[in-house]
Amino acid sequence: MFSFEIKHKSGQARTGIIKTAHGEIRTPAFIPVATKATVKALTPAQLNEIGFDAILSNTYHLYLQPGADIIEKLGGLQKVSAWHKPMFTDSGGFQVMSLNDGLCKVSDDKVIFKSHIDASKHEFTPEKSMQIQRKLGADLIFAFDQCLDINADYETTKESLARTHSWEERSLAEFKKLNVDNKQALCGIVQGGRFKDLREESAKFIASLDFDTLAIGSIFGDPKEESFALVKHAMQFLPEEKTKHLLGIGAVEDIFNYVSLGLDTFDCVLPTRLARSGYIFFRPESGGTEENRFRYKLINTQYKEDLKPLDENCDCYTCKNFSRGYIHHLFKAKELLVYTLITYHNLYFFKRMMDEIRESIENGTFMELKRKWLG
Amino acid sequence: MFSFEIKHKSGQARTGIIKTAHGEIRTPAFIPVATKATVKALTPAQLNEIGFDAILSNTYHLYLQPGADIIEKLGGLQKVSAWHKPMFTDSGGFQVMSLNDGLCKVSDDKVIFKSHIDASKHEFTPEKSMQIQRKLGADLIFAFDQCLDINADYETTKESLARTHSWEERSLAEFKKLNVDNKQALCGIVQGGRFKDLREESAKFIASLDFDTLAIGSIFGDPKEESFALVKHAMQFLPEEKTKHLLGIGAVEDIFNYVSLGLDTFDCVLPTRLARSGYIFFRPESGGTEENRFRYKLINTQYKEDLKPLDENCDCYTCKNFSRGYIHHLFKAKELLVYTLITYHNLYFFKRMMDEIRESIENGTFMELKRKWLG
Repeated sequence: MFSFEIKHKSGQARTGIIKTAHGEIRTPAFIPVATKATVKALTPAQLNEIGFDAILSNTYHLYLQPGADIIEKLGGLQKVSAWHKPMFTDSGGFQVMSLNDGLCKVSDDKVIFKSHIDASKHEFTPEKSMQIQRKLGADLIFAFDQCLDINADYETTKESLARTHSWEERSLAEFKKLNVDNKQALCGIVQGGRFKDLREESAKFIASLDFDTLAIGSIFGDPKEESFALVKHAMQFLPEEKTKHLLGIGAVEDIFNYVSLGLDTFDCVLPTRLARSGYIFFRPESGGTEENRFRYKLINTQYKEDLKPLDENCDCYTCKNFSRGYIHHLFKAKELLVYTLITYHNLYFFKRMMDEIRESIENGTFMELKRKWLG
Repeated sequence: MFSFEIKHKSGQARTGIIKTAHGEIRTPAFIPVATKATVKALTPAQLNEIGFDAILSNTYHLYLQPGADIIEKLGGLQKVSAWHKPMFTDSGGFQVMSLNDGLCKVSDDKVIFKSHIDASKHEFTPEKSMQIQRKLGADLIFAFDQCLDINADYETTKESLARTHSWEERSLAEFKKLNVDNKQALCGIVQGGRFKDLREESAKFIASLDFDTLAIGSIFGDPKEESFALVKHAMQFLPEEKTKHLLGIGAVEDIFNYVSLGLDTFDCVLPTRLARSGYIFFRPESGGTEENRFRYKLINTQYKEDLKPLDENCDCYTCKNFSRGYIHHLFKAKELLVYTLITYHNLYFFKRMMDEIRESIENGTFMELKRKWLG
């Protein structure tokens, strides 16, 4: 059910089509995060109106609440959330660590962790992550890996990488047992912390396995140059024909930079999480730059009587209908509508940027577009 | 700009069309409450999709936040909230009392009160309420009145009624000064607490003034029989040709009962406020009755694996797309989407009920419909 076709190339940057059991994804694509089976504050109708092809939900969160069995009984993630297009789930590996404040217990066999909701004790193995993701039923699922602190030393990272590779092999074996109807695809993840040789070792190893698609994990974006160098180094050992996902990355400059390396898909909570804190993304024509990170904070009182839309060069539902002054009022009054309006705008900003990126790759003007955005 | 035409009558119940500067309202109508210039959790696009003709905002809240001057600078309530259909504002009289925990200071000239947001001191006079409502710019605005505790004794109520009548005359005089372009309409309010003779006195007095439209205030719904008797008594002194609004009333049985007395419009926070607490309205075909007040509480664990929609006999966006199990999960996880989905459903329930009420009045089957709903 899963395929990937490269359509155009411009340097290493490329456009393509991922086909899944629930339809197609035009790449490069930004994949909004729907942690608990909902992109916070938006209906699937609104996500469709914006025009996204795919969203990504979270194994860790859904396992704890409401539970994978319940999602399965209710018909699986797509049916339950009324998102009838492609869907990803991550493996839970990252959340087990990041939401456990380092208190999870990792052995070669498994991870024991406490629920961040009620402190109840749970364990994940690679097999269990596959079983949960099978029940959830996303089109593209991720191998279970260990996400280390990016500042871990060489020895710790090397030891963790060996474990991650063994877990990914176990993930693949379990996946092959479960995926008898060929409905899902499995993504292998390159780890290796901040060490070039470990990234290379990981890329070569993961590339040698029979994953449908590939990802690079634990790239936290800062420092930018180091992150970029690590991804660039790893990319040369990954086969061209497979899609590459960059986990958790979504700053504007990162997307341009990593698209230029040949990355195909990105997921990140940035536009949705920042929306709920009142940060507005705005386009380069409106003054968005790498320095201001293409965003401003609406809560500043200078906006309270501002008749202008969030971004004068945006034509989303929010910008066509509402002023900064009104949205500023809703934010101060903590009105629920404000989360919908800003989330809608921020995601539209990313959707349109990705449209322009794809178009520029197909027109051979990607570097020009990149300069327009990043200067 | 304001007119009312009665279309059909069935007993005292009637259908009609209110025409305003921003379009028409088909009556009897339920008017959702948009306290701070937003119906909580819904976009105006969603309200339009449900099919409402009008919404009601709140003078007290908008005066305090963001302020009437700001709303005026931003283009008035309709422009600011992107609700381009008819809009009501109440006068603030009720909130001054109810949100001040009885601590407002009432004299014959004015009310002094403290902001429930920052305890700053403010005052309202009838003139000021008119000036604020002029700046807000709704199509139909309300005279400034004193809302007493419904349990106030006869002497207190009589004294308050005299004050309310004087305030309403002052409201009308100020309104005539301000409404030079004839864009707004003013609604006079019948008060009189729980005393039949005072309600009669008030109805006669208010009917004698040159209000565009009429309302009955301080009917709190309980006890039902007493409330009904008071409204019924007052109604006979109000001219047939003017629209009658029942302030703050919106229980299903109340709407049927008061429509049968000839009331035309109703506003109430019930469907939206209950939505945010997880209460679901459901239709008589699905088991909704006066006893269960046409609602159930979704948070009960019995619904966590329930594949059925919120109401099997509802065809709203929420019911066509989502299961009780999913919405139960969203509610437990406190996901923002849940407030949108339930509010949408509850308001759709009221919209469709009003459609059926209007249709039945035009078909001469209103009493039959009322029996179907209330038994």
